[in-house]
Amino acid sequence: MYDMTIRLQADSEKCLYEQIYEHIRHEIREGKLLAGERLPSTRSLAEYLQVARSTVDYAYDQLQSEGYIEARACRGYFVCPIEGLLRLGERQQPRESVPEKESRAERGAEIPTQEAPFYDFAPHGIDMSGFPFSVWKRINRNILNDGNSELFARGEPQGDYDLRLTVSRYLHSSRGVNCTPEQIIVGAGNDYLLMLLEKILGRHVEIAMENPTYKRTWRIFQSFAYRVVTVPMDENGMVVDELEKTDARVAYVMPSHQFPTGTVMPIGRRTELLKWADGAEERYLIEDDYDSEFRYRGKPIPSLQSSDEHGKVIYIGTFSKAIAPAIRVSYMVLPRKLLEIYRRDCYFYSCTVSRIDQGVLNEFIRDGYFERHLNKMRKIYRAKHDLLLRSLEPFAGRFSFSGEHGGLHLVLTAKGNETEEELIARARKKGVKVYGISDSCVEAVEGNATVLLGFGSLSEQGITEGVRKLEEAWL
Amino acid sequence: MYDMTIRLQADSEKCLYEQIYEHIRHEIREGKLLAGERLPSTRSLAEYLQVARSTVDYAYDQLQSEGYIEARACRGYFVCPIEGLLRLGERQQPRESVPEKESRAERGAEIPTQEAPFYDFAPHGIDMSGFPFSVWKRINRNILNDGNSELFARGEPQGDYDLRLTVSRYLHSSRGVNCTPEQIIVGAGNDYLLMLLEKILGRHVEIAMENPTYKRTWRIFQSFAYRVVTVPMDENGMVVDELEKTDARVAYVMPSHQFPTGTVMPIGRRTELLKWADGAEERYLIEDDYDSEFRYRGKPIPSLQSSDEHGKVIYIGTFSKAIAPAIRVSYMVLPRKLLEIYRRDCYFYSCTVSRIDQGVLNEFIRDGYFERHLNKMRKIYRAKHDLLLRSLEPFAGRFSFSGEHGGLHLVLTAKGNETEEELIARARKKGVKVYGISDSCVEAVEGNATVLLGFGSLSEQGITEGVRKLEEAWL
Repeated sequence: MYDMTIRLQADSEKCLYEQIYEHIRHEIREGKLLAGERLPSTRSLAEYLQVARSTVDYAYDQLQSEGYIEARACRGYFVCPIEGLLRLGERQQPRESVPEKESRAERGAEIPTQEAPFYDFAPHGIDMSGFPFSVWKRINRNILNDGNSELFARGEPQGDYDLRLTVSRYLHSSRGVNCTPEQIIVGAGNDYLLMLLEKILGRHVEIAMENPTYKRTWRIFQSFAYRVVTVPMDENGMVVDELEKTDARVAYVMPSHQFPTGTVMPIGRRTELLKWADGAEERYLIEDDYDSEFRYRGKPIPSLQSSDEHGKVIYIGTFSKAIAPAIRVSYMVLPRKLLEIYRRDCYFYSCTVSRIDQGVLNEFIRDGYFERHLNKMRKIYRAKHDLLLRSLEPFAGRFSFSGEHGGLHLVLTAKGNETEEELIARARKKGVKVYGISDSCVEAVEGNATVLLGFGSLSEQGITEGVRKLEEAWL
Repeated sequence: MYDMTIRLQADSEKCLYEQIYEHIRHEIREGKLLAGERLPSTRSLAEYLQVARSTVDYAYDQLQSEGYIEARACRGYFVCPIEGLLRLGERQQPRESVPEKESRAERGAEIPTQEAPFYDFAPHGIDMSGFPFSVWKRINRNILNDGNSELFARGEPQGDYDLRLTVSRYLHSSRGVNCTPEQIIVGAGNDYLLMLLEKILGRHVEIAMENPTYKRTWRIFQSFAYRVVTVPMDENGMVVDELEKTDARVAYVMPSHQFPTGTVMPIGRRTELLKWADGAEERYLIEDDYDSEFRYRGKPIPSLQSSDEHGKVIYIGTFSKAIAPAIRVSYMVLPRKLLEIYRRDCYFYSCTVSRIDQGVLNEFIRDGYFERHLNKMRKIYRAKHDLLLRSLEPFAGRFSFSGEHGGLHLVLTAKGNETEEELIARARKKGVKVYGISDSCVEAVEGNATVLLGFGSLSEQGITEGVRKLEEAWL
């Protein structure tokens, strides 16, 4: 067992449990405590360090809730695999691969408002039980207490520089995004940022989207003076040969985890897309990296933006989903050329996020709480994801599964001739709500009936029981 | 002297000073204590009520800071004129005149970011020293403490119903606006609401603005797929005969206090405008009621929307200015017909204001703090306004003044042949920054040199000293 000699300082500003927690966390992150290694029991460590057992308990709880260690029944605490941990803070060189930092979040996060059926496999549901309300409140309180009247003054149109700096660091270390704070625009949600992008890209843009796609974004583009064309997908994402046949000068893609199919775009297709964009000066790619924080299988894949060498990718992401929908903070990274247009034509649009919220978010990320929250949530979602996959084993004869590498939903495609409507109706009769892929289709797509099963907002018990009901309905 | 028998209740949840404060406030609002009436001295009231003198001091301070009473040196405390007080809470019948509720706020509130000259008469400056930070913090803390995870979920696209209800009541009682909460859309700033309005009104709209006008809004319309035409103004505002000559189907006006001229549109011109709008089904008026909260002279004038009988007025207002720029909350009241279009075409745009901010604002208004804040600020601004007008008396031979009925700036027009540039340059040499009206002109306007003097952000001392410097520069 690893030497757990921790030099505790009684006169430190940090309390004892924090010192223990930080020591172990540091050892794990530095690779000195390895995955699978067993930690001393709380009782023996407490004796060894001459502290109360509850102090060690508390430190272990914190480490466990953040995904650094796990408890195995009757066996003790073990270090979790470190490649699963998202690291912030240590800024890496541009273009270096970021193998330990890839993960995925969820899409949409609409909380169903109408009377929900008993088991709702909403693909946009998220688990808010893990949100660190107390930390958020404390930062909020501190900011308001420290805050002078400056906080209540109008801020910079692109968002406060401190927040943009923090976001640029986060995006670089976690997603390989190459950008300076100057290229970032902070706004109240993706919808708003797309409205702003409309002003930057200009009117009468022809824009290409995959089919099926994220319908909310499609509706937004429809409401613009844009012509939206759909391009077919194959198993690697948007078919670039088909894209070439259109007059589109902008293509909207979700390379990390396409919604709704869950497709992860491989490097070859990404290169093709970037080559298409390089083909004409006015061409751009919009990369919506909506749920890049949660990923469970395979190697992490940096953002498309990280492979962009000619300023062709407009990168959009959101904290509304990785933290909480009510936070209403998204960000857009503009290529230099579009940044110039923004500064010329749109500089007078005030920032839509209050400076207090910007300040809270900045500290939440900068001081490591966001990283901890993500690690914790990933652990929770991975457990739900694995449970759902396991529970669905009896379905393997009659359904195929896809989109299982990340995100917060799985895609089930019937092997038989059932229609989507039949599957949904039979599930509903048993008190289970599932979602047809046709909700996300701009044009009808041929193929077998396909439904989405979201697992974000259901408890583990809910998943188990819901799947049992689905067995009754479908098998 | 009025009988000050206050039945203090020792067992009340309210502390003694609050009971005294509320009693006197109630008597003033009910007209039982009349303007100019002298209050008992704090010493004699404390003796009479058998409470500590500091208790009465505290109650008087609060009443004073909210504009209910004023201290006159060596003479004691006197009741302020009640018509100056904005009342909320008592909902009135529609279309009833609202004589005691009219007031005015300020425009823009851009805080100068570059190194400012010594005396900056910024027309958009506001006085943040009066902001009740402690109340705002307390409400914020309470909301986060009481708040469950629901607060962090996505809310209604138009904004939370509770806030819309509170805003509709406030708008009705203070501005005579006739609307239901269903007609209100809450958004993160006027800029955003105008972007949303673009989607509702449709593309290729011809829109009429006064010249000079609020240049920020002009820039925003320019960035839309709109054609902006300017219409000349006379001393009553937009000239409707000239408006008739255009193809405009929408006219943007600021009837309560036009920026930058300070013109208050009289009822006759308002009727003409409404008649113009009634002339075709597709015609609408946008009423930007940006600084309706602060008004110092003449009878209060309800909003244009309150005279609208055929659903022709789109009413826009903001809390970003009456409370603080960082709050980033504006509201738009849609006529029924446009509301239908919004619900059909724009329902998918998420609300841009966080639910926490919506909750804080709702309580701030609902529980009377906003009313107190406005009363207090009006007292502060009225004092500055009167001081500036008095200080400018020596200028009367060479300048005429206008826009003196409300708002946070005065308009000075030279009687001689100086140019605007000369006036600005000569002031700047003395360390004073004044603002030329041509900054607000879309097209050049003929006439004598005109400058704006904002008094919101300067202290009383700053106003006095700044004007003295202007005397040296201009007289």
